Amino acid sequence: MTDTPLAPGSTVGILGGGQLGRMLAMSAARLGLNCHIYCNEQRSPAFEVAADHTIGDYDDEAALKKFAKSVDVATLEFENVPAAALAAIAKDVPVFPPPYSVEVSQDRLAEKQFAEKLGIGVAPYCEVHSLEDLQDAVEQLGRPGLLKTRRLGYDGKGQVKITDSTGLPEAYESLSGAAALYEKFIDFDREISVVVVRGRDGETRFYDPSENRHENQILAETRIPARVPGTIAHAATDIAERIVSALDYCGVLCVELFYCGEHASAPLVVNEIAPRVHNSGHWTLDACAVSQFENHVRAVAGWPLGTCARHSDAIMRNLIGEDAENWLALAREENACLHLYGKRQIRPGRKMGHVTWLRELRRQD
Amino acid sequence: MTDTPLAPGSTVGILGGGQLGRMLAMSAARLGLNCHIYCNEQRSPAFEVAADHTIGDYDDEAALKKFAKSVDVATLEFENVPAAALAAIAKDVPVFPPPYSVEVSQDRLAEKQFAEKLGIGVAPYCEVHSLEDLQDAVEQLGRPGLLKTRRLGYDGKGQVKITDSTGLPEAYESLSGAAALYEKFIDFDREISVVVVRGRDGETRFYDPSENRHENQILAETRIPARVPGTIAHAATDIAERIVSALDYCGVLCVELFYCGEHASAPLVVNEIAPRVHNSGHWTLDACAVSQFENHVRAVAGWPLGTCARHSDAIMRNLIGEDAENWLALAREENACLHLYGKRQIRPGRKMGHVTWLRELRRQD
Repeated sequence: MTDTPLAPGSTVGILGGGQLGRMLAMSAARLGLNCHIYCNEQRSPAFEVAADHTIGDYDDEAALKKFAKSVDVATLEFENVPAAALAAIAKDVPVFPPPYSVEVSQDRLAEKQFAEKLGIGVAPYCEVHSLEDLQDAVEQLGRPGLLKTRRLGYDGKGQVKITDSTGLPEAYESLSGAAALYEKFIDFDREISVVVVRGRDGETRFYDPSENRHENQILAETRIPARVPGTIAHAATDIAERIVSALDYCGVLCVELFYCGEHASAPLVVNEIAPRVHNSGHWTLDACAVSQFENHVRAVAGWPLGTCARHSDAIMRNLIGEDAENWLALAREENACLHLYGKRQIRPGRKMGHVTWLRELRRQD
Repeated sequence: MTDTPLAPGSTVGILGGGQLGRMLAMSAARLGLNCHIYCNEQRSPAFEVAADHTIGDYDDEAALKKFAKSVDVATLEFENVPAAALAAIAKDVPVFPPPYSVEVSQDRLAEKQFAEKLGIGVAPYCEVHSLEDLQDAVEQLGRPGLLKTRRLGYDGKGQVKITDSTGLPEAYESLSGAAALYEKFIDFDREISVVVVRGRDGETRFYDPSENRHENQILAETRIPARVPGTIAHAATDIAERIVSALDYCGVLCVELFYCGEHASAPLVVNEIAPRVHNSGHWTLDACAVSQFENHVRAVAGWPLGTCARHSDAIMRNLIGEDAENWLALAREENACLHLYGKRQIRPGRKMGHVTWLRELRRQD
């Protein structure tokens, strides 16, 4: 493990072959780096733009070893890569972000405890191992709230909303006994996120916080800049800084936060930490000289980080499921940057692409 | 041959696998289109970012046929594709730009005659089939001048400069008897170029003219906007419009012009017509919502054209030969967009990559 930057022509291995891997691979290619994608699915969006790919399961040690030996550094595009797979690869090749940081984010409890230890606000929660735990938690924290599995959640998967009318036994049953948390619903003004990148040498840079809107628990729209006071934007990047520093992180990481108003007792509450490039940073592809994808590649390849400044303000909208059928109308829109991920089948809730509308940069104070 | 736009998931075939093919393939992927690259070289920069590739000679009819049958539309990234190859492919699949326009640009004489027929200024020239022709031409047009082969010229290849001290027999010998032209050297103020895109339906859009500087007959630097009066910029795009209209063109085309000063008898003289995406349009990747590469793909795929407006001014510099050894220093420069083409071997005069520096847009009158 050396800190010499990987020379152009080197190969970056990426675990996962979805749209994030696809955009990472294209950004790596821009820098003259090749990508080798490892994914357990037959047809993955990233395969079509990568120099090489392996189809293999994440517990196939032989395939993982062969993959590790074929690349100069390994990284990932989804946080639920099994810890054992990362450990296996790390025997043969440097892995960034550090596996520990991935493990923390795989477990909502570990994530919350990690944030609390840093003095960073999180939504009040209780651990849930039984129906009685859930009943106690709801009594203690009140409704509405969210019952969430500790592991394998994303885009609202592994979550049940607990409203006044929700029956707790049914809600608990739906998790099939998985370890879980009950989390008090936060009454926030806005959701924001900070995309931060940290280099191998510890250099840390931030894109300005973006403002996000979810629909059906999936990100629908991101706008940059976020409509929050400058003090809040500063506090949000400070939280991101403390997180990547404590994790001795390398690569891009995204912190999703709830902004609860300047006068709330805790104005900012961390909702989620994603140890990877993030959907709420897709606007950087079109509005910045160096995107989150390129900065992630730069970081894991030991390159100097690129600028996180933007030349334009932007609004990004996801194309989810049938939204993608509008591709022709979207292609006609002026100043719209259309991105389609090459997924063959439209399914409800599936991220098929995104569109970024650029707007003239408004200088902020 | 229908004018229905190709749906995402369709395949664009590209003849040629160099950096232009590489950037075309990445732009196609952004739109959810796959690329199949056909190239006669073993390791081509475009292979690493394309869904499929074929290594074959441009006179291998069977391989060309198989390629044609595997794609939904075919295009090219270099203008010296043999006419027979284009004709062979056109039997099975639509080819854009139209083969006739490619043939015109393959022959400097045909290109000049085509421009003259449209009333567009070209450098004074004489045909050269013998040493006597050359001697007559030099006597008639004077020195300095350029002796150019009619075919297979690019980046200064197939050209000899005729100065006061050049011996004409040696100059003529160096062309090995190839049909040629002697062209009077134009005393220009600036070199500019217009990148134009025309859709299948005839819609035509232009990027603003850029200003180019060559070194050793290879493009060294492009700056946008060109430092020419607005009337000249307008006249230049008008010339480009007449060219693509007369060719019933589809795709991106670049017109290189000499600007000889507002008060010259012919202020603008066409130097070259390139029926493809062009090095002087690389800045569009970073300074526009839709690049020349994406607009070429849109045009040949029958999509609506994208905007040609830019959000930033820019300076693009080519990384030629050993320039590419500076990749690490260039990666450190703020606001520099670094592009490396994945070429393994540095050779003198070889285009290894480019850098675009973005600057704040200055509104022009």
